[in-house]
Amino acid sequence: MLKIASFLRAGCRVKVLLADIHGFLDNLKAPIELVKHRAEYYKFVITNLLIAIGVSIDKLEFVLGSSYQLTPEYQMDLLRLCTVVTEHDAKKAGAEVVKQVENATLSGLIYPLMQALDEQYLGVDVQFGGVDQRKIFTLAKEVLPKIGYKERGHFMNPMVPGLAGGKMSASDPDSKIDVLETPEGVTKKLKKAYAAPKEIEGNGIMSFVEYVLLPAR
Amino acid sequence: MLKIASFLRAGCRVKVLLADIHGFLDNLKAPIELVKHRAEYYKFVITNLLIAIGVSIDKLEFVLGSSYQLTPEYQMDLLRLCTVVTEHDAKKAGAEVVKQVENATLSGLIYPLMQALDEQYLGVDVQFGGVDQRKIFTLAKEVLPKIGYKERGHFMNPMVPGLAGGKMSASDPDSKIDVLETPEGVTKKLKKAYAAPKEIEGNGIMSFVEYVLLPAR
Repeated sequence: MLKIASFLRAGCRVKVLLADIHGFLDNLKAPIELVKHRAEYYKFVITNLLIAIGVSIDKLEFVLGSSYQLTPEYQMDLLRLCTVVTEHDAKKAGAEVVKQVENATLSGLIYPLMQALDEQYLGVDVQFGGVDQRKIFTLAKEVLPKIGYKERGHFMNPMVPGLAGGKMSASDPDSKIDVLETPEGVTKKLKKAYAAPKEIEGNGIMSFVEYVLLPAR
Repeated sequence: MLKIASFLRAGCRVKVLLADIHGFLDNLKAPIELVKHRAEYYKFVITNLLIAIGVSIDKLEFVLGSSYQLTPEYQMDLLRLCTVVTEHDAKKAGAEVVKQVENATLSGLIYPLMQALDEQYLGVDVQFGGVDQRKIFTLAKEVLPKIGYKERGHFMNPMVPGLAGGKMSASDPDSKIDVLETPEGVTKKLKKAYAAPKEIEGNGIMSFVEYVLLPAR
């Protein structure tokens, strides 16, 4: 969020992809109807967070994935990508992003290809994401030129560890402070947070201060 | 072709899928433009062969795959299928139809799923193909009900061995008699054909008589 604020303050045009179809593809984490509601929620929350910290949202745009990912042009390009990307490379690209399970379905292999193709259809110069997206970004750089599109740049944010140590996860409420958290909830979670003395790596509190509090000032 | 004639004579409505996108997906055997021309050629040839052997073509219809396979509804259903079919099952389904190569691309995995979904979008009661299609038919029976569509029936034709023995193949001209063959060409190929004495299995001449000449009378 703070990085989006920095981009906007630097005069960049920012498109936020509300990836409803991707949410649905990722091992059926959620049904498509729920994902669509969630997309609306994200749009509202991101806009208002930026306004709250005094960032102009004139150059901010939200794009719903399903608004262009089901067009004939996009789908033909997706099928073309399917003819140039091997199963092995698609699997590798998604390894850190798509939930890894036994007997994985095909949707997890399609997911990275769509993320690559989105760069072309969103008309962006650069894609921004967490470092966990690195392998998908590498795939995008390699395969877009193979179907005649230009290679894009990629910016990556470090992954902020969860408050409980380890990865921040939607399925562990204590690992993160939610946007709708009450002040009491925030206090409670910070008190419970993992912060071993003299340990900087994976220290939830230190990372929170470094990546959230300090840059926000 | 003779089986299509039988269906039409029995009063069935027959839809022939001109599978242009499938042709493109199968390990890039041909570019999409060539595949589209070939589809037009097939339509012309099939129609005129049936007319030549006195079959009414009133209930015969040709459908180009790309005419409905790039619609948003079809693509959303294809993505839904991708969430219920595993890599393993998609691979197994295509094993006898999709060209098997090292480092296979994703298109070969999508191919059987589209063939299954085509039953719904063509609105057919039964799909007909060679016995080499058996595993794709099995997949179709299993997965269509999982996304809310009814299971279809499947008819299969035996595979006629090539004139040279073994599988009939587009890449071995001597293995088959082409529709546009000259009479001299036919004679020449039949003279060269493989027909070992007392061998019935894989005997190109015997099979030609059994599956082509006798039923055509």
